[in-house]
Amino acid sequence: MSALRILPLGGLGEIGKNMTVVEYDGRIVLVDVGLRFPTADMMGIDLVLPDFAYLRDRVDDIEGIVVTHGHEDHLGCLPWLLRELGETSIPAVYGGRLTMAMARSKLDEHKLRETPLEDVKPGEQIDLGPFSMELIHMTHSIPDSMAVALTTELGTVLVTGDYKFDQTPVDGVPADVSRLAELGRDGVLVLCGDSTNVDRPGFSPSESGVGPHLEDVFSRCEGRIVVTSFASNIHRVQQVIDAAAALGRKVALVGRSMRKNVNIGRQLGHIEVPEGLLLPPREIDDFPDHKVVVISTGSQGEPLSALRRMAHRDHPQVELHNGDTVVFSATPIPGNERAVNETVDRLYHIGCDVITARDAPVHASGHGYAEEVKLMLNLVRPRYVFPFHGDHKRIHLHGQLAEAVGIESDAIFKGENGLPLEVDERGARFAAHEQSGMIFVDGVDLGDPADVALRDRRMLSADGIFVVVATVSEQDGESVAPPEVIFRGVPAQDEPDDALVDEICDVVEASLDRAARDEIREIDLLQQLLHDDLAAFVYERLRRRPMVLPVVVEV
Amino acid sequence: MSALRILPLGGLGEIGKNMTVVEYDGRIVLVDVGLRFPTADMMGIDLVLPDFAYLRDRVDDIEGIVVTHGHEDHLGCLPWLLRELGETSIPAVYGGRLTMAMARSKLDEHKLRETPLEDVKPGEQIDLGPFSMELIHMTHSIPDSMAVALTTELGTVLVTGDYKFDQTPVDGVPADVSRLAELGRDGVLVLCGDSTNVDRPGFSPSESGVGPHLEDVFSRCEGRIVVTSFASNIHRVQQVIDAAAALGRKVALVGRSMRKNVNIGRQLGHIEVPEGLLLPPREIDDFPDHKVVVISTGSQGEPLSALRRMAHRDHPQVELHNGDTVVFSATPIPGNERAVNETVDRLYHIGCDVITARDAPVHASGHGYAEEVKLMLNLVRPRYVFPFHGDHKRIHLHGQLAEAVGIESDAIFKGENGLPLEVDERGARFAAHEQSGMIFVDGVDLGDPADVALRDRRMLSADGIFVVVATVSEQDGESVAPPEVIFRGVPAQDEPDDALVDEICDVVEASLDRAARDEIREIDLLQQLLHDDLAAFVYERLRRRPMVLPVVVEV
Repeated sequence: MSALRILPLGGLGEIGKNMTVVEYDGRIVLVDVGLRFPTADMMGIDLVLPDFAYLRDRVDDIEGIVVTHGHEDHLGCLPWLLRELGETSIPAVYGGRLTMAMARSKLDEHKLRETPLEDVKPGEQIDLGPFSMELIHMTHSIPDSMAVALTTELGTVLVTGDYKFDQTPVDGVPADVSRLAELGRDGVLVLCGDSTNVDRPGFSPSESGVGPHLEDVFSRCEGRIVVTSFASNIHRVQQVIDAAAALGRKVALVGRSMRKNVNIGRQLGHIEVPEGLLLPPREIDDFPDHKVVVISTGSQGEPLSALRRMAHRDHPQVELHNGDTVVFSATPIPGNERAVNETVDRLYHIGCDVITARDAPVHASGHGYAEEVKLMLNLVRPRYVFPFHGDHKRIHLHGQLAEAVGIESDAIFKGENGLPLEVDERGARFAAHEQSGMIFVDGVDLGDPADVALRDRRMLSADGIFVVVATVSEQDGESVAPPEVIFRGVPAQDEPDDALVDEICDVVEASLDRAARDEIREIDLLQQLLHDDLAAFVYERLRRRPMVLPVVVEV
Repeated sequence: MSALRILPLGGLGEIGKNMTVVEYDGRIVLVDVGLRFPTADMMGIDLVLPDFAYLRDRVDDIEGIVVTHGHEDHLGCLPWLLRELGETSIPAVYGGRLTMAMARSKLDEHKLRETPLEDVKPGEQIDLGPFSMELIHMTHSIPDSMAVALTTELGTVLVTGDYKFDQTPVDGVPADVSRLAELGRDGVLVLCGDSTNVDRPGFSPSESGVGPHLEDVFSRCEGRIVVTSFASNIHRVQQVIDAAAALGRKVALVGRSMRKNVNIGRQLGHIEVPEGLLLPPREIDDFPDHKVVVISTGSQGEPLSALRRMAHRDHPQVELHNGDTVVFSATPIPGNERAVNETVDRLYHIGCDVITARDAPVHASGHGYAEEVKLMLNLVRPRYVFPFHGDHKRIHLHGQLAEAVGIESDAIFKGENGLPLEVDERGARFAAHEQSGMIFVDGVDLGDPADVALRDRRMLSADGIFVVVATVSEQDGESVAPPEVIFRGVPAQDEPDDALVDEICDVVEASLDRAARDEIREIDLLQQLLHDDLAAFVYERLRRRPMVLPVVVEV
């Protein structure tokens, strides 16, 4: 028998961009295709993908892609991957019904319609070459979350995906512990388990406990209420809707992804909205403050999200004021703390009251705590433990939990991206490093996402760099000096071309005029706007994607 | 009688750079002269100062500067301020003995020796024009912390500085509550109080409770122990030393500011080190692991700090390995979470165990919690409350605490930087905004800090911008392509001069060679190094300080 190889291309030593290659007998199943959001110092970058160069020469060996659930850090890379590897070269993508609906919506935006997307029910056995694949129903902060069991003649690999053992989920269907126990009894070779909350003792609180707390908080609010949460947290949105309905408030959905996900959720029956409850955002001002709940994107303080714009008094439909309450029904993903704190502080400055998960139990994590991770280990009783989905600290602590339930330390493999675990009849060991890393995406909103370029570090230097210094008045945000335009390394454009520079200056001036009119004054937002307008223009004009660094100076 | 004006130039709507102008009868006392550290998106900036343009035309009106304690966010701006306003134009700087010793050391580095620094004992009355100034002993995470009472014929302004009501401080001298009560009985007009921990319920734990927990943690460690904390937290360093001594371990001090502050602390009798306990860092490897405690800077994950370098396996004296334990005896200042988490995760990756304040009570905050803020309000019973030292959220919550102890809401003034509070016999009100904001310092280590330029946003455009793109090998960090050099807006250098570009390329290559030799591979560190070398070179050559943006591309 040949060896089984498990190669994580993302998700180890970090939180985000989960992607794992499972190989047996020369054939590949890819589990999850996620992305990550950039950190503040990755200027001009909108998304970070796992480097999947390893798959380029192996495309013909891919039997299929399995996606555990519809979150961006497990699904978001799919369009880029299909585009780069060729959408007809992947036999099919498999996942739960909601996951596939979200994948379809995403691929539609990218005009990728050639790859079959297969809805899989928990318990179905799907043959993928030498693998038999089965999904196991789990609970998480999005419906249709699944663990994946991949069985070969050597044994079974179980990738848990993200999970918690919620005994009272909002849809009434807890994780399928009996199937997990059955797999454990039959023998699981390798368990690749979620490590996100291994550092939290005890059990995570149930999602259905959040609703009553939301209603309690709402009942004490006199002005408008804005609730922000992840748009994909469909059961949370349901609970906000229920609490609003119970208190006689209308609900407005604000933010593109919020409206999109609620639509998909309604179509698939995951969310029920009472007749006449929804309010189009433009009609918010027609209702008295105490009759409105706004559900908004922006829980992570994302630069151009609806809530961030409200906090900057810069949202076209929702103008917040003294007496309004903003409820953060989400916690910051590590790395987003500063953006979230800044948003919270601006809301206080406007005079809003802000309720976060520190003030009231208005959020429940979708990831199981330490006791749940131990329960998973005890149910599955794996031969080898390969902690997934966590930074080095969490991987280390996951290992400690495994030892605590009696697994020998030499059966616990603390890995990193690019380091494949090889298992055969003689045992398990790490093999030689494969290429792994980050690919940056400059996801400028061009209308046609197919035009957006992938860019890895190599390409940064190949496409050149492009710096624009704009000088604006601190008083009114108007441009007060001609922009400085600098570009270097852009092929065929090494010497600045005066006509192009003039055109770019026009673009900058137009952007700034628009920003001044819309009263967008915060430097971060201005830079984002300039970046988007400039990158779109440069691509239009040169069919090149230099790195765009806008620098805004206030005088 | 004229009006009393209290104008915060920093510290409101933010955490950091505290600076307040107190004016009466045309005369000024400046309370605190702090700075802030830059956030990740302020590339090429080392320090942020409050914009003190307001003082430029009023220099002759300044009676003196009072510094409440020696932390950078209260003292750090002093050299820049003296340099800009003229060191002989400030009559004197006042503060506790340790505060003045730290000020002297700081001014010495800047070769500023003309301004008198006056040690003031608590209770002494100092006449400063129309003001009578008195310091009141407080407890905080640095010795010699004081509140400042400024009395005029109109009444008393009390600026608390940073404080907690520690009933068992390490030096045995609690805050002078009886003097605060006396001031309250005589009548305090305005209380300007610390808001840092108003969002934490109850009382803060005592500093002296930390020592036994440190000893307890140490006693379970088998390898080396590295403790990181603020270098100025002298009582904490004392407790680490005591715990090490109790367990028969030697102590090595690593990091320039750690050695400097321990020296000052020893000279002033704030810290006692048993004979023969200290170990020079270069001798660490001569002792067995279980006989060593290293006290290190870097608790905030600062880019070139000792601990960050250890975490990158890049410290000349301390090479950490499996079995070592790193104790974070400090919590991240808001905004530093990501840098701290990254450092912690690298330590786990090396195989170290990491203990933070989440794992064991190895830290106590220096700022009082909600009940202590209420106690201050009840002791002082001010006519008006002007919450200081906090973002808008904390200022808002401080106002709620004041209302909770019975202060009328119209006597609570929620301010912001640049907004002066005016008080006269008729009442108190905010007056017209004055100029306030940020000044950036590019604190390149040039040997001679007097050469370092202040730079406000205006000057950014005046001095131009300067981008260097370096391309290095991912394998060994060697430079693999000639650097791209771009500069624009640098006066008299608008057209790149080939000779200069060549020289700059040489500087970049030399920096990268050095980094490759020292195995500095992390992009952040490389960029920092390039930035420092380039900025120093450009200043040397052009006597200009364009903004320097190094971009390192790995291929």
